[in-house]
Amino acid sequence: MSQSGFARTPAPPYYAVIFSSRRTAIEEGYAGMADRMEELAGQQPGFLGLESARGSDGFGITVSYWESLEAIAAWHAHAEHRVAQVAGRKKWYEHFEARVTRVERAYSGP
Amino acid sequence: MSQSGFARTPAPPYYAVIFSSRRTAIEEGYAGMADRMEELAGQQPGFLGLESARGSDGFGITVSYWESLEAIAAWHAHAEHRVAQVAGRKKWYEHFEARVTRVERAYSGP
Repeated sequence: MSQSGFARTPAPPYYAVIFSSRRTAIEEGYAGMADRMEELAGQQPGFLGLESARGSDGFGITVSYWESLEAIAAWHAHAEHRVAQVAGRKKWYEHFEARVTRVERAYSGP
Repeated sequence: MSQSGFARTPAPPYYAVIFSSRRTAIEEGYAGMADRMEELAGQQPGFLGLESARGSDGFGITVSYWESLEAIAAWHAHAEHRVAQVAGRKKWYEHFEARVTRVERAYSGP
């Protein structure tokens, strides 16, 4: 059984940032930025994993998992991430919703 | 600006269930079940909204939003939902991870 795509997270509690977005039609620079942000996030203290899906309609959800709210705040303030955030608001995202959550309980299947 | 696909949630705190899954190759019955579960979830007390994305690789994320942990527990125990859960484990999902979370903070853009 393949488990590719799934984050390997510890037992709760931990934190998750749910980033829901609709892309613009602008492709230029997007894939490179997305790959780089995933790589960079993976290097941050307190990073636990990332899951992402986007349908052909341009609507996508990316969830990143973190040890603490402090780790999330530090990643949010990361200089290179800041540059990507500004470009994202300007070019790549028509709209997004970000929600910072605390994971209380988790289970898996089948 | 289109906001289709996004849940219209209130100010935090509220709750989110992150359901990450990889589909099997079995299509039979899946779309009908998914549509019915979305319809049924929308009729439950405490339901706030739903967001969903699945890529062409079969990996998908669905997030449902709820007023309380009690509302989530009631939906989980709903008889018709239970039947779908059993079928999902047997036929439609190769693997899934479900995480029950409390939304602490939210923001949007651009």
